[in-house]
Amino acid sequence: MKIFSKNYQTIWVDETDGEVNIIDQTKLPHEFVIKRISDIDQMKNAIKTMEVRGAPLIGGAAAYGVALACKEFNSLTDIENKSKELVKARPTAINLKWAVERMINKLSDAKKDNFIKTAFNEAKEIIEEDKNFCKEIGHHGYKIIEEIYKKKRDTVNILTHCNAGWLATIDWGTATSPIYHAHKKGIPIHIWVDETRPRNQGANLTSFELNHENIPNTIISDNTGGILMQKGLVDLCIVGSDRALSNGDVCNKIGTYLKALAAFENSIPFYVALPSSTIDWETEDYNAIPIEERESKELSHIKGIDEEGNIKELRIYPKKSKSLNLAFDVTPAKFVTGLITEMGICRANKNDIKKLHR
Amino acid sequence: MKIFSKNYQTIWVDETDGEVNIIDQTKLPHEFVIKRISDIDQMKNAIKTMEVRGAPLIGGAAAYGVALACKEFNSLTDIENKSKELVKARPTAINLKWAVERMINKLSDAKKDNFIKTAFNEAKEIIEEDKNFCKEIGHHGYKIIEEIYKKKRDTVNILTHCNAGWLATIDWGTATSPIYHAHKKGIPIHIWVDETRPRNQGANLTSFELNHENIPNTIISDNTGGILMQKGLVDLCIVGSDRALSNGDVCNKIGTYLKALAAFENSIPFYVALPSSTIDWETEDYNAIPIEERESKELSHIKGIDEEGNIKELRIYPKKSKSLNLAFDVTPAKFVTGLITEMGICRANKNDIKKLHR
Repeated sequence: MKIFSKNYQTIWVDETDGEVNIIDQTKLPHEFVIKRISDIDQMKNAIKTMEVRGAPLIGGAAAYGVALACKEFNSLTDIENKSKELVKARPTAINLKWAVERMINKLSDAKKDNFIKTAFNEAKEIIEEDKNFCKEIGHHGYKIIEEIYKKKRDTVNILTHCNAGWLATIDWGTATSPIYHAHKKGIPIHIWVDETRPRNQGANLTSFELNHENIPNTIISDNTGGILMQKGLVDLCIVGSDRALSNGDVCNKIGTYLKALAAFENSIPFYVALPSSTIDWETEDYNAIPIEERESKELSHIKGIDEEGNIKELRIYPKKSKSLNLAFDVTPAKFVTGLITEMGICRANKNDIKKLHR
Repeated sequence: MKIFSKNYQTIWVDETDGEVNIIDQTKLPHEFVIKRISDIDQMKNAIKTMEVRGAPLIGGAAAYGVALACKEFNSLTDIENKSKELVKARPTAINLKWAVERMINKLSDAKKDNFIKTAFNEAKEIIEEDKNFCKEIGHHGYKIIEEIYKKKRDTVNILTHCNAGWLATIDWGTATSPIYHAHKKGIPIHIWVDETRPRNQGANLTSFELNHENIPNTIISDNTGGILMQKGLVDLCIVGSDRALSNGDVCNKIGTYLKALAAFENSIPFYVALPSSTIDWETEDYNAIPIEERESKELSHIKGIDEEGNIKELRIYPKKSKSLNLAFDVTPAKFVTGLITEMGICRANKNDIKKLHR
């Protein structure tokens, strides 16, 4: 999608030297910085510090991380060991483990001499697949927006949480793909963007994305969605997912659950858009999903831009106060209207998910 | 209650010169500044800019505002006109209108020569009443905490939203009064403090208060309460209210509704603590409550303290992004376990509220 009217994707290989480029998302929206990643340790760090974030992009970044490891190491054992470290960079996103396993499996079938080429090809395949999946998610999902528009005959108000936008994927996004598709088809839409504390990915990334695609949007505090729903100002919620269970329970950015409860209470459809690779077919109980606890400084300190245009950090909590920073929560399936994947739309229950995806 | 081990209340008259002192709450938690208020316009400004905030304190501040007007103006008409302007400073808090009406009624019965004395006495009465009400709220409310402790025999985890603490009242607080009383009685408690965007009164004021009274507390983002409740880490919610209807619907700081939904879903008691003066006996439908919209800069910009100890402000949103800043939401009575007032505890329905309060 576009930044300053030029098309980008979130990760790409520099064809002149084979290094990997990412957009450093910790600098957005105040600065647009392209960063070069030369080895797997740098990629691990980029994932850990959330320079790249969002389940699908983490998958793509991890794949390139393994590919870069193939330049540094000759033996599959070494590559595998480094890759295992990479998996630890973020504990909740299933795509990270999935992408690394897929890369290692591919390498297991390859000859040593072909490791680098095999790995870069496979990583490229992973990101191309993701782009297509996201495009298909939009292709299926915009019809939900179109249906609402046909009945309402007025601007469709869509609430989204965090950034499940193209910056969280390779292109198009998951939750935003139906939005971008609807916009391209001329359906009038307006997006309520949850700020999404503590890292404000809604404000910093989703609103930034939508601005650059000229889609009307308004940032709200995470506390605001409830009353907007009560007042009939939300027609539809679409969020992404970091891990969905095969029974329809959805793990996503902390705060998603609260919006799902409000949507359910106010009879507003609540959809989760995700590539099918995000479905965890093994975990049965959402209590078994590890919930990442991030450093409390992400809460107590905040970055922004001062009047002179310098990015600064401030402490916003009392010095002595403790804080707890959980990154995800789980929305039980009963509050989810449906899942939108590249395969189509299904209800959030075991049978329907299985029928569509297996 | 205590700040740096010294007892304060939030508003008091300087006996040497009859001027009114407030704690400038916009400077907390980074600076502790006592501010002198000399006339009704300054008081209006202090209410509008939230140097004083919280429904009960706004009531007390408004009363002193009217008293200060009696020093400036001789005729009741002039005092009344100035007081009408004062009421406009914040549209949602019912105590503001209530306190001003009570002051004007009192003055209507007084002789001109006695206006100043009458007004200051009445304002003093209003704040003394509020102190007693808050104390009584704690006296009734701590028993809920004690009951939970008797069953659990372990630290009681209480979630609160925004600041319905002593800083929102004259002393003791509303939601915090049961907490302070429980703590004084030696019941082990731990408070989850919702940050409460956009103005972060939870982090800035509630956590600050609790720290100075040595009550263990942890700040969480407003998104976090849901998963804590799912995981059994919240035993009880207590919040305040800016206006409660006589049917039990509760208007409070934006985001309260989302926590009430999560508490209801997870069978966690959700109590609202308020002086009975906050009950609006006239409004029948919560849709008729005006919801204050504050300037969007409160969302897009944030104050904090830099490494050198200077209070600074940063822009945290993309420059082009719009934002909407609604200050309150409404929690329908069905999600409220009960109300705690100075009269006792009652369920959130018309009959029980009436039986206790009329």
